[in-house]
Amino acid sequence: METVVAGRGLIFALEPYPLTASLAEQLAFEQGKTSQRLFPDGESYLRIETPVKDRHCIVLADLSQPNNKYLPLVFLVETLREFGAASVGLVAPYLSYMRQDKRFTEGEAITSRIFARHLSAQLDWLVTVDPHLHRYRSLDEIYSIPSRVVAGAPLLADWLKGQSNLLLVGPDAESEQWVSQISAHSGHPFVIGRKQRFGDRDVQVNLPDLSAYQQHTAVIIDDVIASGQTLLKCIAALQAQGIERIKCAGVHGIFADGADAQLLAAGLDELATTNTIVHPSNAMDITPLLIAPIRECLLDSQEPVTKS
Amino acid sequence: METVVAGRGLIFALEPYPLTASLAEQLAFEQGKTSQRLFPDGESYLRIETPVKDRHCIVLADLSQPNNKYLPLVFLVETLREFGAASVGLVAPYLSYMRQDKRFTEGEAITSRIFARHLSAQLDWLVTVDPHLHRYRSLDEIYSIPSRVVAGAPLLADWLKGQSNLLLVGPDAESEQWVSQISAHSGHPFVIGRKQRFGDRDVQVNLPDLSAYQQHTAVIIDDVIASGQTLLKCIAALQAQGIERIKCAGVHGIFADGADAQLLAAGLDELATTNTIVHPSNAMDITPLLIAPIRECLLDSQEPVTKS
Repeated sequence: METVVAGRGLIFALEPYPLTASLAEQLAFEQGKTSQRLFPDGESYLRIETPVKDRHCIVLADLSQPNNKYLPLVFLVETLREFGAASVGLVAPYLSYMRQDKRFTEGEAITSRIFARHLSAQLDWLVTVDPHLHRYRSLDEIYSIPSRVVAGAPLLADWLKGQSNLLLVGPDAESEQWVSQISAHSGHPFVIGRKQRFGDRDVQVNLPDLSAYQQHTAVIIDDVIASGQTLLKCIAALQAQGIERIKCAGVHGIFADGADAQLLAAGLDELATTNTIVHPSNAMDITPLLIAPIRECLLDSQEPVTKS
Repeated sequence: METVVAGRGLIFALEPYPLTASLAEQLAFEQGKTSQRLFPDGESYLRIETPVKDRHCIVLADLSQPNNKYLPLVFLVETLREFGAASVGLVAPYLSYMRQDKRFTEGEAITSRIFARHLSAQLDWLVTVDPHLHRYRSLDEIYSIPSRVVAGAPLLADWLKGQSNLLLVGPDAESEQWVSQISAHSGHPFVIGRKQRFGDRDVQVNLPDLSAYQQHTAVIIDDVIASGQTLLKCIAALQAQGIERIKCAGVHGIFADGADAQLLAAGLDELATTNTIVHPSNAMDITPLLIAPIRECLLDSQEPVTKS
């Protein structure tokens, strides 16, 4: 009996994505080549240009603004399988459709469950970073495939550790557990605000008394920066209490509808995000945190191929 | 034993679509109400506001520019089922992903098969108008659900019948069978061009000698107008032979990248399409042709519900 070692693993990017090169390097995977474009009628074209037979494949996709990306993802995954890939896992540093986790009003589609069911049917495993787990305690409640969740907090904590005289600010009760951990790891004090939501873009943020922190630089910490409304209200609340230097650090910078420009115009000294979503504010590299979870998932799906 | 008659059928539009009202009226179906929008992060929200339990539902969707529409379609169909719809059929007056019907180059994704497999898994039946059937002879080769194909040619023929002194022009060999039928039905003579394709937007059209038709109005006839390049080349070829009055009639007007403006600027007297895809050129109503095929599909899926 002889163990057949398949070629090195392959990593395919759904779209150009700087993480592809760093992940390939740190995993010692080869970058798979594809040719992708849109026909004039808006249909996707895909050609896989690297042999994939019997090789373990990773598809790397930032799933923010997901609707346009779903079919191209399906085409890529199914075509990898058609050509005999040994396994196909998904690294989605930003995972979408986690927010609608219940029916707030009768008749609503629970998009998180439907999306998770469809992705699970396509893939062997999933690695993501800080998905929006609110009412679900784990991805296993809706994803039927093995998954690993990477926490971005240690990366933010390391980035903050090197700075001095900071006050960490969590904009709402949900952020408390997270901000308190970053505070413990980085050594900076923290406060937590109280947020009320009246609509997708209509929120209000109240902060506790900050008279003890007048000489500090406030760093508002959030997991996802989407419309930026929560941060804008938080900035205004800090400024109303005389705080002059304000930074903002987030894991996922979606910045819908020019939210980044609005934030900088509101008087932010610095806007820093991880590179889960490509943006000029990317200041922290998530790559090293992804390696171990990806290897675990690959091991799970890599039963050795043997021939007698 | 008593036959339980469920309420009237329901028709849901994936997006605002004038065909919804005319189809609902001619089928004697009720229009189902939904609330749909995008969150700032690009995720879809859907709420179904009409009770659907035990009712036969039609989803009406123009699937041109399909990538953005696929997930909202899945959310709608699956949520209708979750709320107990008796059946869910799809009326897609324009059906996408029919063109990549083989691997022209090794490594290509055969998107038509993948798309068809996924749609088939969601729906009970499908009605469409003139899908791009080239190498596939029938939708049954890739769709596993019952389907009906409506031909747009009779609608174009009726529209042309009321006009005089026309020369019908088919831009390529593929169009011959179609244009010859319209000619037979409308009584106008026709010619067929020869098309060579060098790329998505790079084609060449040659026409036979037209000296016998100098006083005619040429009507170029095409099934799908996408980039408009074929028509533009055909217009130029007609003009080069001294034809002055030129119209264009198509079933599906996609008009990618401002193709409609380009066509009108090239000296077209009239641009006429059916309303499978909403556009100012819509001059022919497809609704009446859809009714019988929809009723056939509904009958197939409407086993009477009985209780003892």
